[in-house]
Amino acid sequence: MDKAIGVFDSGIGGLTVVKELLKLLPHEDIVYFGDTARVPYGVKSRETIIKFSLENTLFLLQKNVKVIVVACNTSSSLALPVIRQHFKIPIIGVILPGAKEAVYATKNGRVGVIGTRATINSGAYEQEIKRLDNKIKVFSQACPMFVPIVEEDWVNDDIALHVAHKYLAPLRGKNIDTLILGCTHYPLLKPKIHAIMGRGVRLIDSAQQVAQEVRQVLIQEGLLSKNKKKSTREYFVSDEVAIFANVASRFLGEKLKDVKKAGVC
Amino acid sequence: MDKAIGVFDSGIGGLTVVKELLKLLPHEDIVYFGDTARVPYGVKSRETIIKFSLENTLFLLQKNVKVIVVACNTSSSLALPVIRQHFKIPIIGVILPGAKEAVYATKNGRVGVIGTRATINSGAYEQEIKRLDNKIKVFSQACPMFVPIVEEDWVNDDIALHVAHKYLAPLRGKNIDTLILGCTHYPLLKPKIHAIMGRGVRLIDSAQQVAQEVRQVLIQEGLLSKNKKKSTREYFVSDEVAIFANVASRFLGEKLKDVKKAGVC
Repeated sequence: MDKAIGVFDSGIGGLTVVKELLKLLPHEDIVYFGDTARVPYGVKSRETIIKFSLENTLFLLQKNVKVIVVACNTSSSLALPVIRQHFKIPIIGVILPGAKEAVYATKNGRVGVIGTRATINSGAYEQEIKRLDNKIKVFSQACPMFVPIVEEDWVNDDIALHVAHKYLAPLRGKNIDTLILGCTHYPLLKPKIHAIMGRGVRLIDSAQQVAQEVRQVLIQEGLLSKNKKKSTREYFVSDEVAIFANVASRFLGEKLKDVKKAGVC
Repeated sequence: MDKAIGVFDSGIGGLTVVKELLKLLPHEDIVYFGDTARVPYGVKSRETIIKFSLENTLFLLQKNVKVIVVACNTSSSLALPVIRQHFKIPIIGVILPGAKEAVYATKNGRVGVIGTRATINSGAYEQEIKRLDNKIKVFSQACPMFVPIVEEDWVNDDIALHVAHKYLAPLRGKNIDTLILGCTHYPLLKPKIHAIMGRGVRLIDSAQQVAQEVRQVLIQEGLLSKNKKKSTREYFVSDEVAIFANVASRFLGEKLKDVKKAGVC
């Protein structure tokens, strides 16, 4: 049996990555795990995020996967080195693809990064960008309220604009031409972020780049599916399915089928 | 050795109850558990909230407690009957004390309730109020964004006022004279809620009533401490201590000492 691509996230935001994988690699089977019982990760400590991420990895490994995508910026920022250290399977995070794209996109060498508090405090994006080009200046800002606003479906409300203004004001004076949306929820706020930062600032949403990276790794490792039949998708969540399915279709862009509950802890 | 009062919450909000317990029962030892690794509960399912609440109860039982206070509105709303069904120890929730106080306070028989989505969807406050006096009309409203606003320390920001206005607008037309703050975070938003609902609406924050209820139960069961020495307090959290201690003092009204990390899952 062909092995699947495993994807995990703290919750449902990682479905934006699944959406791009379905487009780019339509013949690959996918197993998704969303840790909806313990979401969010972005306000928690490094140690806890690593523990949860290792458990999620272990869950996916038992589902017969050939590669694991950490489709969560917080997990990728804090847990990726530890996951890679312990497991043999290829692991792909979302930080490097986003950082690469930002380095490629910026003309003036001034890049902004927004994300959860844990992601921003980790300095992960800044490190990757500096490793790729150490002349680039990076300006970071945590935006903890963006996730609740997306989950509350207030993205078109004036409150979203006020909140975005409050967080982004410090970045507006920095003359950045590129802004990394370092959390899978943030692309849903693109119109508000554009309205505040101006159309001249390019917004980097790494989901497409992550899918490209997955394709590269599968080719390199000789793991691309030779299957031409319709691929399968399985979705697992740690909290009740009903709670998850409601919001999930906004991220995936289509209705979810075959969602099952699975306990990791 | 004297047994302690055990208190648990999904996170740190339950410290508002500890604060009142320390005032009313200064000679009682207290063991607190905050499930900061899995916080919040209010957006999660009944089944998950029950599972976590049972695990928290089990944790406190191993700390030699004589009574357990479920200092979390979401846990109290959804898990209290199941906890009581399984464990012999007296269990005190926050719903009945708040409901009693509201029934006592209302003059016109029109009471509002605000809380997390899980608390409001459970209908727990409405049921308790109706059981006490079935002529009272109850109007409920979930306010999911209030917790992130308190945790982000934006209670004095205009955004808090906008958000409060958005949630409370449907309650303003209902001619209520009493409003239950059905989440331990909400008392920190009292000034904004007062500004919108008007001074004529009495805000019920059940922490004081819960402390009274604990005292009653300890007297009834012959469990009041005979100790006149200074009592002890132990605080346990499931995520890193540093993350917890920062915000916790705002709820407790004093600096926390002796906070330890403890894994429940």
